[in-house]
Amino acid sequence: MDMQPPPFAAATATPAPAPALPIYRRLAEHYLSAIQSGTLAPGDRMPSVRDLMRQHHVSLSTALQTLRHLEEGGWLEARPRSGYFVRQPRRAAIRPVGEPNVLAPLDPAQYVGIHEQVSDFIARRQLQAPAIDLSGMSCAPELYAVEALKNAAIRALREQPSLLTSPMPINGNVTFRQVVARRALNAGIRIGADDVVVTHGCIEALNLALRAVAQAGDTIAVESPTYFGLLQTLESLGMRALEIPTSPQTGISIEALELAIQTYGNIKAVVVVPTLQNPLGCIMPDSHKERLVALCERCAVPLIEDDAYSELADGDVAPSAAKVWDRSGNVIYCASLNKVLAPGMRLGWMTSGKWHERVKMLKFAYTRANEEWTQITAANYMGSPAYDRHLRRLRGNLKEQREQMAEAIAGYFPSETRLSVPDGGVGLWVELPRGLSSKAVFAAALDQGIGVSPGVIFSNSDRFDHYLRLCCGKPFTHELDQALRKLGGIVERLPG
Amino acid sequence: MDMQPPPFAAATATPAPAPALPIYRRLAEHYLSAIQSGTLAPGDRMPSVRDLMRQHHVSLSTALQTLRHLEEGGWLEARPRSGYFVRQPRRAAIRPVGEPNVLAPLDPAQYVGIHEQVSDFIARRQLQAPAIDLSGMSCAPELYAVEALKNAAIRALREQPSLLTSPMPINGNVTFRQVVARRALNAGIRIGADDVVVTHGCIEALNLALRAVAQAGDTIAVESPTYFGLLQTLESLGMRALEIPTSPQTGISIEALELAIQTYGNIKAVVVVPTLQNPLGCIMPDSHKERLVALCERCAVPLIEDDAYSELADGDVAPSAAKVWDRSGNVIYCASLNKVLAPGMRLGWMTSGKWHERVKMLKFAYTRANEEWTQITAANYMGSPAYDRHLRRLRGNLKEQREQMAEAIAGYFPSETRLSVPDGGVGLWVELPRGLSSKAVFAAALDQGIGVSPGVIFSNSDRFDHYLRLCCGKPFTHELDQALRKLGGIVERLPG
Ligand SMILES: Cc1ncc(COP(=O)(O)O)c(C=O)c1O
Ligand SMILES: Cc1ncc(COP(=O)(O)O)c(C=O)c1O
Repeated sequence: MDMQPPPFAAATATPAPAPALPIYRRLAEHYLSAIQSGTLAPGDRMPSVRDLMRQHHVSLSTALQTLRHLEEGGWLEARPRSGYFVRQPRRAAIRPVGEPNVLAPLDPAQYVGIHEQVSDFIARRQLQAPAIDLSGMSCAPELYAVEALKNAAIRALREQPSLLTSPMPINGNVTFRQVVARRALNAGIRIGADDVVVTHGCIEALNLALRAVAQAGDTIAVESPTYFGLLQTLESLGMRALEIPTSPQTGISIEALELAIQTYGNIKAVVVVPTLQNPLGCIMPDSHKERLVALCERCAVPLIEDDAYSELADGDVAPSAAKVWDRSGNVIYCASLNKVLAPGMRLGWMTSGKWHERVKMLKFAYTRANEEWTQITAANYMGSPAYDRHLRRLRGNLKEQREQMAEAIAGYFPSETRLSVPDGGVGLWVELPRGLSSKAVFAAALDQGIGVSPGVIFSNSDRFDHYLRLCCGKPFTHELDQALRKLGGIVERLPG
Repeated sequence: MDMQPPPFAAATATPAPAPALPIYRRLAEHYLSAIQSGTLAPGDRMPSVRDLMRQHHVSLSTALQTLRHLEEGGWLEARPRSGYFVRQPRRAAIRPVGEPNVLAPLDPAQYVGIHEQVSDFIARRQLQAPAIDLSGMSCAPELYAVEALKNAAIRALREQPSLLTSPMPINGNVTFRQVVARRALNAGIRIGADDVVVTHGCIEALNLALRAVAQAGDTIAVESPTYFGLLQTLESLGMRALEIPTSPQTGISIEALELAIQTYGNIKAVVVVPTLQNPLGCIMPDSHKERLVALCERCAVPLIEDDAYSELADGDVAPSAAKVWDRSGNVIYCASLNKVLAPGMRLGWMTSGKWHERVKMLKFAYTRANEEWTQITAANYMGSPAYDRHLRRLRGNLKEQREQMAEAIAGYFPSETRLSVPDGGVGLWVELPRGLSSKAVFAAALDQGIGVSPGVIFSNSDRFDHYLRLCCGKPFTHELDQALRKLGGIVERLPG
């Protein structure tokens, strides 16, 4: 078989595909883009096995694999004796997730034991480890650059054998901070290595940011729904969350936020995830980011930007960070490498505007500096062109998995189910028929070996109890398809 | 040269010396123990070069190196034409550090910007990196098992290539927690792997412990002087330190503590370092530990035990932890591997008695789980007999370095200087003539390329301004000897 890139690679404008992907996957991706762009419309006939072999110089088995892969993903249907045809995607018929009522009065800001709720779900999932776990937000380990990272780590140790036994530089490894600062340019952020504080994941960055600008008893405005980890952190710091209505399409309602700031005098910070919000998956339009930054500056409320996901947005141009519009240092930007580079390295970083010195002090007083070993390993790899290739591949895989899961959900879940498929990331936010309890779905699914995140943990209220968050970080397999079929059955049968 | 262990190794009861130490060092250690035990008394004549060669089957150069090494350390003096004689150690003449007045009224508990003081010293030391830095508390990297750890790390990656790219187990790696629990038996602590929470160093453990039992505004009783890192942490958490008089021989005054608890109703925790207190170096007698634990239990004040150093105590039997006397779960025990295993791995752990669940929750909300990579590497190495050999060697090296530094200080510093040489650890606490400012010594020393820790940072008061803490974690060299001579000169010349 010809190991040169087949002609379709040259014929399209997509970047050179990563060599690790087998040919049939690359060929399937080629046709998938054609379907998604409309070049191939529902009902169109796909090239035959023979056509594929001839046009792309691939073997019979590769051609067959390509067609089956697209069929399994729900993109094609086989009609007996006439070949494969592009299907009308089922998810085209599914309605998007509903919009919040931005005029409804806000909940009194208080903490209501979100910790116990979340811990309870985590503990139950641990006791009864599900065979198919869709509750987390991390990708399958094999979607990362396993070998290259391992080799970078070993190289780091070989080159500096006393890395493990030497004290660490106090603000993190300089090379790593340089690499991070350089990459931040992708999101439009211009900083130097000295502006970066390395942290144990984005979660430590969020903690430091909150502690830098607020204290126990203070109220913090957050999106609703929001990442349960943020609610836990707020609760553990004794701070109160004020949930602001958030659109599944455009993010936090800036009008509602402004009203809240005026109404409640004591809001000490706003925390948002402008890109690929967790759990909604939405990306805030640039005009909203600009208005949000301006509002916070005008009202002298620090804005904490959580950017754990932006490198996972579809396409090759990352969305801009809200930080880009920050003129006065009022935005604290927190990022993570755990979703994009490697979940096991626990690396995050932040740049803190006018709170930089205070954040450095808090970091030192809490966990000192991060290990250098992981930082040097990350810098080795992230500084090479392989990292961009990895990111493109990861985004491609996620997109495919996401579409396939959405397709399966559209096929298996009751027709009142609503779903907006996000333009990137690892999560799907599914709106179930109102009245259905995500807690009941969680329990019934767990009994059948399936882990899900119940909507109820994404708010201090019960407002999102009829939602589920499902992870699409794992390759779409027959088992996963069957798990979604079971889950659809559970949703169907549970009393509403 | 005979590479078998020379006969002196078999003739003594000391454990098999680590193979990494050159023969002359092992021979020197042999004679050093004889001097320290009194078998060789001041004034006794040492065996000649020829005697050494014959008795120990060593070469001429090894015999010469042995004698010079002991001479450089201040243990022998050469008398022209008659050979080497055991010296009266100079430090025998130096008085121990003074005792505190336990009846003096306590300072009002408040925070006075210790952060800025410490940061200022750290920043100045960073700007003007000293050639000889005695200000830290870590050992030279080469005193650790550089190669063995590096190999354990590489093995971990080879055996589990996706270690870096997989999500981490939520409470830390089980094998590591098992190893840690097993080793805790050395300090008399009986726990299982499930009782252990892995942390980013002892400093994170202290933060978690404090946050578990107290909140901003609360008062915490601490030793005086105490580790400046604890004062920083308290300040960053908005807590107040109440400094309790602490004896350089026996640790915190339990009488003064009891009085303080009765007087100030609002003491929410007591933090102590019973073994090798920082900066004093003292080890609390077991009877004191028992009384302290009982007092805290009786008064329902949680006791936080900081045990960063006990594996560095001289001898092969580790002192007991105060936790040993804990019957009700009122003691939170915090430990570190950064001083004993490897400064670059940032590993610590804790066991939290009745606050275990709360600590787990706080750890999760702050930094999630630690990376598994370091934990597996540490478990690999700590589970092997090589770790005990490393610890014995490290303790031996530290003891020698400590004695040599004490000798040099006794020789070079003005005669009013006081010093208690601790029975283990990495630090020496030097009392300068009263009226001399450690801040001035710090600045003058830095100008001459020497880093020291000024006593003033170990308290929120100025009470310890006429003290210095010097690190004895680095091998004693001619440069170090000369640096101490310079430092002695600075102390001599500064106006008191
Ligand atoms: C929105 C958001 N912020 C922060 C985090 C925590 O990131 P890290 O794993 O880097 O601590 C997550 C993880 O799921 C997240 O979804
Ligand atoms: C008494 C004491 N506790 C805690 C620490 C911090 O330990 P770690 O480096 O494990 O965070 C130190 C470090 O110097 C110390 O001396």
